[in-house]
Amino acid sequence: MGGTFFTKLAERWAEGKFLCVGLDPDIEKMPLVVREEHSSLEDAMFAFNKAIIDATADIACAVKPNSAFYEAYGEEGLRALKKTATYLAESYPELPTILDAKRADIGNTSEKYAEAVFDELGFGGVTIHPYLGRTAIQPFLDRKDRGIFILVKTSNEGSAEFQDLLVGNETLYARIARAVADSWNQNWNCGVVVGATYPEELALVRSIVGEMPILVPGIGAQGGDAKTAFNAAKNKAGTGVLMAVSRSIIYASPGADYADAARAMAQKFTDEIRS
Amino acid sequence: MGGTFFTKLAERWAEGKFLCVGLDPDIEKMPLVVREEHSSLEDAMFAFNKAIIDATADIACAVKPNSAFYEAYGEEGLRALKKTATYLAESYPELPTILDAKRADIGNTSEKYAEAVFDELGFGGVTIHPYLGRTAIQPFLDRKDRGIFILVKTSNEGSAEFQDLLVGNETLYARIARAVADSWNQNWNCGVVVGATYPEELALVRSIVGEMPILVPGIGAQGGDAKTAFNAAKNKAGTGVLMAVSRSIIYASPGADYADAARAMAQKFTDEIRS
Repeated sequence: MGGTFFTKLAERWAEGKFLCVGLDPDIEKMPLVVREEHSSLEDAMFAFNKAIIDATADIACAVKPNSAFYEAYGEEGLRALKKTATYLAESYPELPTILDAKRADIGNTSEKYAEAVFDELGFGGVTIHPYLGRTAIQPFLDRKDRGIFILVKTSNEGSAEFQDLLVGNETLYARIARAVADSWNQNWNCGVVVGATYPEELALVRSIVGEMPILVPGIGAQGGDAKTAFNAAKNKAGTGVLMAVSRSIIYASPGADYADAARAMAQKFTDEIRS
Repeated sequence: MGGTFFTKLAERWAEGKFLCVGLDPDIEKMPLVVREEHSSLEDAMFAFNKAIIDATADIACAVKPNSAFYEAYGEEGLRALKKTATYLAESYPELPTILDAKRADIGNTSEKYAEAVFDELGFGGVTIHPYLGRTAIQPFLDRKDRGIFILVKTSNEGSAEFQDLLVGNETLYARIARAVADSWNQNWNCGVVVGATYPEELALVRSIVGEMPILVPGIGAQGGDAKTAFNAAKNKAGTGVLMAVSRSIIYASPGADYADAARAMAQKFTDEIRS
C-alpha cells in the first residue's frame, strides 16, 4: 500500500469506514439558513462544508470536494475550497482528502496541475482522466505519498459510448484498468474509479486490479445501490473501497438540522454497506 | 459555422490568421524583468500576458491560456487569469479566446465547469476530455455560442497507449473524431484537438471531420513542424485550423524585449504556415 494517503486510508478501512463524503456545495441547493447566516458566498460555502465535515468525519474514510462546484464561484469559491482543505488538514489530519478534479494534460501541464492540487491546495488524492496515457500523467504518479484515482468506468448514463468499446477481446475500460494495475502503479499509489451504477463492471474491474483501491461514486442521487456496489467492489480482505456520496448526504435536510441529517444519512449508508 | 465563437474565428481565418497564442505563464521561465517590475505574482503574470497579447493580437486567430499554469499559483493565479480574460474581452472583443482546461465530468458537474469557464471567467471556448461520452458533456455542447474542442489525438509522446487502440477497424481516436462529427456537433459548435506531432493522424482526422475546426498544439517546444502540420490539418477551403504555440512564443526572449521577440516568433510561425 505504502505512502501517506493510502496508509491513512487503510487505517480507516480497518475501522470499518468506507464512506467518502463528497463536498459539492451548490449555493442554490444549500439550506437557506446557511445563506442567511453568512454575508459572503465564501463564508457560506466554508461554514456549510465545516458543518458537514464535523458531523461525518468520525464515520467517513475520506472527504472529497469536487473542484467544479468551487470553480463555478470564481475567487470566492477557490478561497472556500482552500479554507476547507486547510481546515481538514489542521482539524482532521488522519482523514484522507481527495480533490475530485478529473485532470490530465501533457507532462509539463500535468506537473502544474499536480502542484495546484497537492502543493497549493494540499489535498492527499486526486481523480485523473486516462485518455492521454501514462507518460502524460507521470507527474501525478511520481507523487508517492498521494492517491491517484484513474477514471475507468464512470457512473453516468452514456458512459458506454467509448468506455464499453471492444479493444481486442475486452472493453476499453477493462483495458485501462489492466494498464493501471500492470504498469501505472509502480509506486503503489494508484486507485481506479468505477460507478456504483454498474455493479457487474465493478466486479470485473475488481477481478482485474487485485487489491487496488476502488473509488465508487454513484450511490444515492445517481441511483446506485450501496450494498450491491460494495459487495461487487470489495477486495478479498473485504475492504479496498471508497463509497462516494455527495448530494444525498449534504442535502439530506433543507433546514437548520442539515448537519445532523447529513450524519444520520452517512450512518445509514455505512450500516447498509456493513450489513 | 454559426455562433459567436466560430463566427469570430472564421473572420480571423479569412484574414489568413491561424496562430493560437498559448498563455502558459510559468514564473520560473518568465523574463526576470517582469518579476522585478511587479511586486506580486498576480501583477507579474497579468503584465506578462498583457504584453504578449498586445504584441500578437493582430496576427493571431485566437488566444488560449492554459488553466493549470494559473491554478498552480492559487488565488493569485486565478485573479491573473480572470484579469487576462477581462482584458481580452474589453480590449480585443473580436479575438476568440479558449481556456485550455481539459475538463469533463458527469452532467451536473460539467454544468458547473461550463459555468466556471464561460460565465465566471468569460472565455469563448474550452478543451474537453471525451472519455465520459457525449451525454456527460452535454452542458458544454448546449452552449451554442461557444467553441467546444474535444481531445482526439493528443500531442504527447505516449498518446498511443489508448488513443491508438483498434476498435473494430479503426483506432479509438478516429472513432472519437467520427462520433464528434456525426452526433456531438448538433449545434455546430464543436472542434477537435489533434497534435502537430502526428501529421498522418492529423490528415486522417481531417478526412473524418469534414470542415470542422481543428486545434493543433505541439509545434515549437514540442517539436511539431508548423507547415507540415498545417497542410495536414487544413480543410478543403485551406482553413479550419488553429495552430497553437505557447512556449516558443512567450519565452522567445529572456530579456526586456520579450514582447517584441514574441511578435517576431508569431510572425515567423505565421509566415511558415502561409508559405
